[in-house]
Amino acid sequence: MANPRGSKDSSGLDRRRKLAQTKENANYAEKRAQILASAAEAFAEVGYDATTLNDIAARAGTDRASVYYYASSKEELFQQVCSGMLASNLAAAEEIAARELSAAEKLELIMVHHLQTHEKGYPQWTVLVRELRRVTDARTEWSRDEVERMRRYEAVVRSILQDGMDDGSLRSDVDPEVAMHAIFGMLNWTHRWFRPDGHYDAATVAKEFAVITLSGLTQR
Amino acid sequence: MANPRGSKDSSGLDRRRKLAQTKENANYAEKRAQILASAAEAFAEVGYDATTLNDIAARAGTDRASVYYYASSKEELFQQVCSGMLASNLAAAEEIAARELSAAEKLELIMVHHLQTHEKGYPQWTVLVRELRRVTDARTEWSRDEVERMRRYEAVVRSILQDGMDDGSLRSDVDPEVAMHAIFGMLNWTHRWFRPDGHYDAATVAKEFAVITLSGLTQR
Repeated sequence: MANPRGSKDSSGLDRRRKLAQTKENANYAEKRAQILASAAEAFAEVGYDATTLNDIAARAGTDRASVYYYASSKEELFQQVCSGMLASNLAAAEEIAARELSAAEKLELIMVHHLQTHEKGYPQWTVLVRELRRVTDARTEWSRDEVERMRRYEAVVRSILQDGMDDGSLRSDVDPEVAMHAIFGMLNWTHRWFRPDGHYDAATVAKEFAVITLSGLTQR
Repeated sequence: MANPRGSKDSSGLDRRRKLAQTKENANYAEKRAQILASAAEAFAEVGYDATTLNDIAARAGTDRASVYYYASSKEELFQQVCSGMLASNLAAAEEIAARELSAAEKLELIMVHHLQTHEKGYPQWTVLVRELRRVTDARTEWSRDEVERMRRYEAVVRSILQDGMDDGSLRSDVDPEVAMHAIFGMLNWTHRWFRPDGHYDAATVAKEFAVITLSGLTQR
């Protein structure tokens, strides 16, 4: 990812970092992945505000000065940690929405993909959800783009709900906006309790969420 | 509320604050409520870490020194802002659980009470949910008590779900733990989108959540 706009870093280090990021360099990429993983861990455990570049460096087994060779600021590390997940969820939702499936089938597939993004991207997804206000405050081009992806992702789900209500397959006495928030609520609240190495796997949880929201808990 | 344990403040100001909090004093109580409301607003808008006592004082139309007459620290203000809501939800859930009602009826009543706590306690409930990690890190007696209330509150809901599965009124092919997290997920995620002065009222949203989780979105 390029530096976020507004970065004031224009030192020689900045040029060397950009050059290293551009060139194919396995060592650089590996070390950078390690620093990003350390940043994600730290943000998830103690929060963005309480994390220092020194903490991240220590977790990655390096020093603060070396971290600057991989990212210009804590904000850039945050963006790199969070980037890609909303884009993946949006692309999957748009692809699923276009298929010849019922609204209920589409919603279940989207729920499964969403929790699998969380599972595969752990703890990055946790960081994104916990620090969502940092994104939605939308002061950078990056955060504006992420907010736009989130808005479009929500719109796809709301539109599937509306289609199902219109074609009579879903009940129409519930507000599609409220139903959309209910679904994202249960999906995103997993940041509080779901762990990839825990008792549940993402697909099982998502399928149970689909049973709850589509069929309901009441026995028939 | 008493000072949190571990407070090192033992100045004359500390004694005067405790005295004022003990005595009936309408002016003191009013000013303290104003400072707490300002603290809740600031924590909700910019987050706990980024809020300073100066910010809170400015919002309350006073100065930092005066804030210390009402609370010994930012941490104490946070505790005062968040206190009472989990206790209210737990007490309501225990009272509802003891009634002669079906599991589904109990769950709906608990959802309505939960969102009404959010609505009445806005933006305090938002602060509690957004800064939940500050509570669950559980380094003070206050936070340990709050975590225990949260654990018991979740246990009441899980137990109602289990009872409904046992008596055959709720489907038993869903894990009650996952169903409990699904319900708290949609309830607590409202901190992202629900506003008391917005388009929806808490009872309407909670009843739609109950329809979604109990009857399901699929048209029958």
